[in-house]
Amino acid sequence: MDRAGKPASAGANNSRRTGSVGVMSTHSRDLSASLRLDSGAVLAPVTIAYETYGTLSPARDNVILVCHALSGDAHAAGWSSVEDTPSAVDGIGAEERGIQPRGGLGWWDNMIGPGKAFDTNRYYVVSTNLLGSCRGSTGPASANPATGIPYGTDFPVITVGDMVRAERAMLRELGIERLLAVAGGSLGGMQAMQWSIDYPEAVHTVIMTASSARLGAQGVAWNAIARNAIMSDPDWQGGHYCGTGRMPTAGVGIARMIGHVTYLSAESMDEKFGRRLQTGDSLSYTLFGPDFAVESYLRHQAATFARRFDANSYLYLSRALTYFDPARSCGGGSLASALAQTKARFLLVSFSSDWLYPTRDSNEIQRSLRTAGKEVEHHVIETNYGHDSFLLEDVHQTRLISSFLDRNYRPAPA
Amino acid sequence: MDRAGKPASAGANNSRRTGSVGVMSTHSRDLSASLRLDSGAVLAPVTIAYETYGTLSPARDNVILVCHALSGDAHAAGWSSVEDTPSAVDGIGAEERGIQPRGGLGWWDNMIGPGKAFDTNRYYVVSTNLLGSCRGSTGPASANPATGIPYGTDFPVITVGDMVRAERAMLRELGIERLLAVAGGSLGGMQAMQWSIDYPEAVHTVIMTASSARLGAQGVAWNAIARNAIMSDPDWQGGHYCGTGRMPTAGVGIARMIGHVTYLSAESMDEKFGRRLQTGDSLSYTLFGPDFAVESYLRHQAATFARRFDANSYLYLSRALTYFDPARSCGGGSLASALAQTKARFLLVSFSSDWLYPTRDSNEIQRSLRTAGKEVEHHVIETNYGHDSFLLEDVHQTRLISSFLDRNYRPAPA
Repeated sequence: MDRAGKPASAGANNSRRTGSVGVMSTHSRDLSASLRLDSGAVLAPVTIAYETYGTLSPARDNVILVCHALSGDAHAAGWSSVEDTPSAVDGIGAEERGIQPRGGLGWWDNMIGPGKAFDTNRYYVVSTNLLGSCRGSTGPASANPATGIPYGTDFPVITVGDMVRAERAMLRELGIERLLAVAGGSLGGMQAMQWSIDYPEAVHTVIMTASSARLGAQGVAWNAIARNAIMSDPDWQGGHYCGTGRMPTAGVGIARMIGHVTYLSAESMDEKFGRRLQTGDSLSYTLFGPDFAVESYLRHQAATFARRFDANSYLYLSRALTYFDPARSCGGGSLASALAQTKARFLLVSFSSDWLYPTRDSNEIQRSLRTAGKEVEHHVIETNYGHDSFLLEDVHQTRLISSFLDRNYRPAPA
Repeated sequence: MDRAGKPASAGANNSRRTGSVGVMSTHSRDLSASLRLDSGAVLAPVTIAYETYGTLSPARDNVILVCHALSGDAHAAGWSSVEDTPSAVDGIGAEERGIQPRGGLGWWDNMIGPGKAFDTNRYYVVSTNLLGSCRGSTGPASANPATGIPYGTDFPVITVGDMVRAERAMLRELGIERLLAVAGGSLGGMQAMQWSIDYPEAVHTVIMTASSARLGAQGVAWNAIARNAIMSDPDWQGGHYCGTGRMPTAGVGIARMIGHVTYLSAESMDEKFGRRLQTGDSLSYTLFGPDFAVESYLRHQAATFARRFDANSYLYLSRALTYFDPARSCGGGSLASALAQTKARFLLVSFSSDWLYPTRDSNEIQRSLRTAGKEVEHHVIETNYGHDSFLLEDVHQTRLISSFLDRNYRPAPA
């Protein structure tokens, strides 16, 4: 293995710092066919936003699809070419990573780039924005062709299977049939698993970090509460708020606060905030104001997120997240049966402090894959960052993912 | 020790079932003096609602004050004398306890009564409704004497110290100066600790279950999110909703849903709900409706609670909960210093599955008490019910509390 002789990726020429893919633009692709959804509905037209990093090999055998989580977007690596683009990194550990959240840095920039875990000197990384999102791909904020105005809640309910179907169609438009890897954390990992079930011939390996084969009752509950917070905001207006001049920012803010706390660990919150007061050493005896630093922080996160993310997209993606359950949808109740058809090798990574997608969920996947006779390795990384570890921890993840990809990539002879 | 020869308590004569104190009425007492609050404000008039169980001994040495948690009330044991009184037990494990939530059963009925942990054949148990609550004691829903209409958010911010000051004044009105024990779970345990600090001569023992000497950042955050959900409900109207015909039921519902999930454990939620669908075996592809049983359950809890509990009371009690921090308020940053003045012996009980008031919080109290040279015992009970364990688990708690009280009660000679 000799990486030194490889040509640098195109993006790397624009690098602002070592190991960056540079300044990146998000592209979009209109699917040539309509999309049949799991619910039975048919969606058209469908546009998928995406970015690519690195160079497609002549044999087209070095493609890695990176799938984002609920609030991410196609901009996974490098700096955005659009000035002042709000970054998906906002609120997901930007401070811990010592980066400037306003710079439009990709949400997995620490993992994607020359010499990084997803080494763009070697692999061609494609990152798409999810179907149903609001960051370039078709979703509830897109124009409904039947009316010419945004769908709102006339948008059909979508599933992880639908997201994967859209990603598959988009990649085929780009001439890509096979994937060296599908990788993602959280909801992104769910897509990776679904890919291997629905398109077994297309997926060589799956990398799931901080993910699950199904949310437990508590995870379903957090999502339901967040959605209820949005839907009970009168400014949501049944989902048809576009053009009314009123947006359910309060509800989205509450949803984000809930999500944010579930993404962290109690320990990391204690380390970061403890019981530090916002100003001085004395209680202000306020009912309204944020007296504790953590209270102020949550309000900031809520306001930032509400500006960046569409309320309806949150509802649809959250719903898809809770519906994901391949044992139920593809396995007659058995995850091992659902995974029987996959031909992929799996790398599972979980984090000791992640209580939202806990290690026991990855253990369950590991057991089911073994029962189904598949190759799987599962690594538990000791961290303090909770679920956000998959975005923040890069030392161990880089080593594990680099090694896994290296062992599974046999480039076609030139 | 011979319990068989003791006379039954008055309440027990009305018992509907073995071990019940029977049908109970909530009384109220107007304090004869105004209450000076930690914030510097002065509150008057002040009424405290209470119930009593058992018989006061001639020496007045058998009094146990029981303090409730955020959403509780004075009705701690027996059946309410008021028909159709909504029970504080609603949503806190009524189903697990196999009881009828509409019956107005006291929130700690499994612990208070003849032969129970707080044995009313032996002890005189007093239960008060917290200052700031909406269940009989003075709070934001009470009439402001300056205007004749409910205080709303003109009610002063209160602390656990203020609650304890009000309880102390009320007990003195009843002629009670000394307490064999102050007992409570969660916020109730905080009051018990504060009692021992503020009135060391009055408190012989403290029983804190599932409690803490201060919430960590995550606990502060959950409370802040719940309060923000209420305050961002337009029907809250800055807290002056009384008489407007609009109540912030949606916001209170979201707050309750958040609280409810934090009171349970992921494991118990999986056992109770798993991923069971509300109707049938198929997804309904609904964005609005509750598709999972746990989603429907949370909506029911929200609606029930919003009918029973005043939104502003929730805000004030939640704020007091987050402010509680005797190390800061009484110990110059050291909990051991804050506890130096107490003369009480402590019984601490924590629960293995409680992640909101985790065992490490009780460990911290234990360490601080030992540093201060005080007597303390700490028992960890293995349960699956999360924070609600203090309301649900009674086998081990009964044994621990009975034994602790028995060892610490030396009745005055007749």
